[in-house]
Amino acid sequence: MMGKTTWVIPDGFLPTKSLGEQPSHEAVCVLNLTDEHATINMTFYFEDKEPLTGFQASCGALRTHHIRLDKLRSHSGEEVPRGVPYAIKVESSVPVVVQHSRLDSSQEALALFTTMAYSG
Amino acid sequence: MMGKTTWVIPDGFLPTKSLGEQPSHEAVCVLNLTDEHATINMTFYFEDKEPLTGFQASCGALRTHHIRLDKLRSHSGEEVPRGVPYAIKVESSVPVVVQHSRLDSSQEALALFTTMAYSG
Amino acid sequence: MMGKTTWVIPDGFLPTKSLGEQPSHEAVCVLNLTDEHATINMTFYFEDKEPLTGFQASCGALRTHHIRLDKLRSHSGEEVPRGVPYAIKVESSVPVVVQHSRLDSSQEALALFTTMAYSG
Amino acid sequence: MMGKTTWVIPDGFLPTKSLGEQPSHEAVCVLNLTDEHATINMTFYFEDKEPLTGFQASCGALRTHHIRLDKLRSHSGEEVPRGVPYAIKVESSVPVVVQHSRLDSSQEALALFTTMAYSG
Repeated sequence: MMGKTTWVIPDGFLPTKSLGEQPSHEAVCVLNLTDEHATINMTFYFEDKEPLTGFQASCGALRTHHIRLDKLRSHSGEEVPRGVPYAIKVESSVPVVVQHSRLDSSQEALALFTTMAYSG
Repeated sequence: MMGKTTWVIPDGFLPTKSLGEQPSHEAVCVLNLTDEHATINMTFYFEDKEPLTGFQASCGALRTHHIRLDKLRSHSGEEVPRGVPYAIKVESSVPVVVQHSRLDSSQEALALFTTMAYSG
Repeated sequence: MMGKTTWVIPDGFLPTKSLGEQPSHEAVCVLNLTDEHATINMTFYFEDKEPLTGFQASCGALRTHHIRLDKLRSHSGEEVPRGVPYAIKVESSVPVVVQHSRLDSSQEALALFTTMAYSG
Repeated sequence: MMGKTTWVIPDGFLPTKSLGEQPSHEAVCVLNLTDEHATINMTFYFEDKEPLTGFQASCGALRTHHIRLDKLRSHSGEEVPRGVPYAIKVESSVPVVVQHSRLDSSQEALALFTTMAYSG
């Protein structure tokens, strides 16, 4: 089956500012080509504090989920912190493919970047 | 032979707006280094509905094809939906290499991103 | 030794317009970690015509070369065509690592993209 | 353990200009999922001169470090040169994952790009 159960993204960052119609955001884009529902657990790593856990999402069989990190909440209601560098580990209950993208609208015009996550 | 017959792209999205001279679009860029014509089948996956099939393109031997998703039509005349997140599976009759790019001109200045597709 | 001798880039395009101080361009960025000089041959593939060959560059031992495609000329003096989709095959006499980037300044603000080339 | 000890990035460049609130910069983003501190050594390769060594950084266990190349200094106080093409080799004392990103704010609006580094 196409995919892996663990993926990492070293360059995570949620800009604090947004101009224009689109808010600055990041998305962890998951594609699940299996015939089973995927439970997705995310861990956030920082430069100077302990990792944050408890962020969960899901992706149906033969579905995609573009998980918006600016809208994500942990079990205990925490948000992903803005304006600080972080890295992300994505763990899925079934093999999936993960791509990570950022839209930055903190200046007059938006900027975009993307990369496949790394799966070792 | 360089390439694979199946590639996936988790982060697909066609912006609904375009400003300036270049329309917002995505391209599935195929390079066929074999000496046989490639038939390309694309499946689109969504967050909350069944996958869409029936989107076909081709790429000649020793040719590239930058398949414009904003212009693509399925056998039954359907367009790729705009303004909703999707993921793409690309299947080729011969090994090819696939890269995916987006041009977003929905704000004053265009934004670009690209990545090699994932082939497992 | 880190690297490969053959790399491909499906999404090549040289914008025809440039605004501001930086011209629209693409670069094939080569890193040669061997202790031998690298001779680099590039082939350009198109949607509807035969591949173009005869484009050569070099990269010294323990050197990088960011080969500017807007400045490249073939043995017979040909330029890389502008405003048409192409793909690139990069072949080196010794193992190298290849990354491909585009700067598009055809609207008011520049846009950038990059990806590692594909080596199979 | 997820990761590698050697990574390379062929396309490095520090723009000389910055407009707006965010300075033009590059970051080598490291994620260390091991339980040991990582010592990171960086070598910079150029088109026409000898490589520069002596640039060191670190990344704690279960931490990320987004190493800002515009702020980096070598043991002898040297900066990463601006306005010239370079390539980067990143060597870590323990396996890590490396991603490289650039923010270019040399025109009116910022541009971003990113890619996973290459690890062979």
